[in-house]
Amino acid sequence: MTECNVLVAQSGGPTTVINSSLAGVIAGALADQKVNKIYGARHGIVGVLKEDLVALDEVFGGNEELLGQLKITPSMYLGSCRHKLANIDQSTEEYDKIFEVFEAYHIEYFFYIGGNDSMDTVAKLSKYAEEKGKKINIIGVPKTIDNDLVGIDHTPGFGSAAKYIATSFLEMAHDTYIYNTDSVLIVEVMGRNAGWLTASAALARNSYQVAPHLIYLPEVAFSSEEFLSEVRRLVKEKHQVIVAVSEGIKDENGEYLSAKSATVDGFGHAQLSGTGKYLEELVKNEIGCKVRSVELNVLQRCAAHTSSLTDIEEAFLLGKEAVRKAAEGHTSKMVILTRTSNAPYTVEYGTIDVAEVANHEKKIPREWINEAGNDVTEELVEYIRPLIMGEPEIPYVNGIPQYMLL
Amino acid sequence: MTECNVLVAQSGGPTTVINSSLAGVIAGALADQKVNKIYGARHGIVGVLKEDLVALDEVFGGNEELLGQLKITPSMYLGSCRHKLANIDQSTEEYDKIFEVFEAYHIEYFFYIGGNDSMDTVAKLSKYAEEKGKKINIIGVPKTIDNDLVGIDHTPGFGSAAKYIATSFLEMAHDTYIYNTDSVLIVEVMGRNAGWLTASAALARNSYQVAPHLIYLPEVAFSSEEFLSEVRRLVKEKHQVIVAVSEGIKDENGEYLSAKSATVDGFGHAQLSGTGKYLEELVKNEIGCKVRSVELNVLQRCAAHTSSLTDIEEAFLLGKEAVRKAAEGHTSKMVILTRTSNAPYTVEYGTIDVAEVANHEKKIPREWINEAGNDVTEELVEYIRPLIMGEPEIPYVNGIPQYMLL
Repeated sequence: MTECNVLVAQSGGPTTVINSSLAGVIAGALADQKVNKIYGARHGIVGVLKEDLVALDEVFGGNEELLGQLKITPSMYLGSCRHKLANIDQSTEEYDKIFEVFEAYHIEYFFYIGGNDSMDTVAKLSKYAEEKGKKINIIGVPKTIDNDLVGIDHTPGFGSAAKYIATSFLEMAHDTYIYNTDSVLIVEVMGRNAGWLTASAALARNSYQVAPHLIYLPEVAFSSEEFLSEVRRLVKEKHQVIVAVSEGIKDENGEYLSAKSATVDGFGHAQLSGTGKYLEELVKNEIGCKVRSVELNVLQRCAAHTSSLTDIEEAFLLGKEAVRKAAEGHTSKMVILTRTSNAPYTVEYGTIDVAEVANHEKKIPREWINEAGNDVTEELVEYIRPLIMGEPEIPYVNGIPQYMLL
Repeated sequence: MTECNVLVAQSGGPTTVINSSLAGVIAGALADQKVNKIYGARHGIVGVLKEDLVALDEVFGGNEELLGQLKITPSMYLGSCRHKLANIDQSTEEYDKIFEVFEAYHIEYFFYIGGNDSMDTVAKLSKYAEEKGKKINIIGVPKTIDNDLVGIDHTPGFGSAAKYIATSFLEMAHDTYIYNTDSVLIVEVMGRNAGWLTASAALARNSYQVAPHLIYLPEVAFSSEEFLSEVRRLVKEKHQVIVAVSEGIKDENGEYLSAKSATVDGFGHAQLSGTGKYLEELVKNEIGCKVRSVELNVLQRCAAHTSSLTDIEEAFLLGKEAVRKAAEGHTSKMVILTRTSNAPYTVEYGTIDVAEVANHEKKIPREWINEAGNDVTEELVEYIRPLIMGEPEIPYVNGIPQYMLL
């Protein structure tokens, strides 16, 4: 019997559960009798090219506790990269090198955990393997806070980011309502082309508060006039107004608001100051009441202390499923989950041809956005709610979370 | 026996545990046999002036669970104000009105939960009561995330904000280290004049990571040249560099960095873009590597889901202590805690004359900052560490924390 080894890598932007998928791959591979070694490549496909590998079976084998710690650690244990492979018909130099490494290490299963660009890599490597008759099973494991992958009900990483965003909006509502004066709070959320993260601010609404009062998504063209008119009306009616806004909203001409906000800095250079900041200035200049903008920034993708337990578990099971599918002989696939019921919430695991996923983008359907284009529907809230459910037990040492070393 | 009623109000900026002090006052007053009614004034002293009172004994009496919920709810249950009373020798109009309300409601104990400005109110009201021979015991209950009150080991609210800041820096370190490229992350922390909050970023350091690599505080004059030289050196050595910077740092001439950052916005108006943003532009222009700035903003004062349990408990006990001191006949005081031991961490509760607290400001002693003025000493870390210890059990409903209604 030949040696059967596994290689896994992570790529793209961080989420709080991408390591849980890595833990799932490791757990699945450790449980697979056929597998000898489990390698991890540092910094994604670049680590494969450089032969920068680490023996994960030696680190995690027989150490359930360490694997549990990996599951709740944010960002990438193996490091990331942003590296796009050339098209095969342009150059096969990198492909040749990658498959040399695969063969040298007797890699029979290769797992790539990532988002859209990473699925492009999975698709290209699969195509090369097929053309050259290479015997390797290549499976993509999805992750992205943006929830913009097609072919899957939702992406691992999104639920945790949504939980952080909803929690933060609730806490900022408590912060905002204490003063008896008119004020506007504008909160900028990530998501350049798809509004899923911004929409999840709606989950901050509960039995006693309805903020955010307005939600602006990249899926609908933004009108400054309508925005100002709505804010004016709401300030008059509610006094404190909270607005969720995607970093990626554009005006009727398709121009990013953040591009309009170009300012000249102290060094005489033009700078983009961000969508939230632009709207803050707009409200200050046109309405004149107290206004503040907050940018949630990187914490929405790395605040693992408030991850969704559902998200952690699903990410883990997708990692395990990837190993099972590879062992069954599947290749050129991305593992997926499909929602089979919303109440009670249940999912099924499966696969999709990775070519159907790569380079596509899932946006919010127009019918899940209200007619005025400044709020989401209850259907969208019900779609997101199960994904933010459950709180993991995070161990704390010295008052801060105990994650796994970098 | 005359009726003995209690009035309590909250003032100033929010913390995540100011409601725990309110819960302590309510619990203490409910347990005091002498007390009949417990009133809360909405929006601080303004609520007293407007006679906008709520009967807290009716809301919380016999409802331990609700009181527990209040303890973990961020921001101000009673609402806040920023209202400075005139000096007594200038006008007694507001004082006369306030004491009319006190008398109409048979208030014998008045508790004001707040920071520096609120202690000024306590001092002024106490002085008026003394001069006019009014029979009322007035006690200040301290709170502020800034930790800048004198006469007390540390202020309630600070420990929770410090825990949020330390946790966030740790998580941002995980986010930053994944790429193999040179980068600088600049994180702006609150604290206009005192650097306690920014210093608490040092508590993110653990057995496997040393970020933040640089810490800049308002207590030391900031030199752009030295900053750039340090960042250059660290980028070369470590590749990813994380900087904690107070919003209130000033240059050698005493000018705020945030004031230097004046930009001209799209409307042609000058804008302050913040200290972090200013330093981001500085690094971009002078060093040229990848750089990002993050402003922690209001979440550091309202993210109650990651409050410090030590902080919650101390805030509660200070509220109770205030009632005990008032019942013993004390007035014109602020309740305090004094650290009696650091390992194990123990505190004693007591009082101080409020006049000694009002309008003073506690900054970080120079000996707790390193010689170069770009980091803190181990003594400072040891001072803060006990304050961030312990995690409260926050109930979650629908995936978000269940706080008490606004």
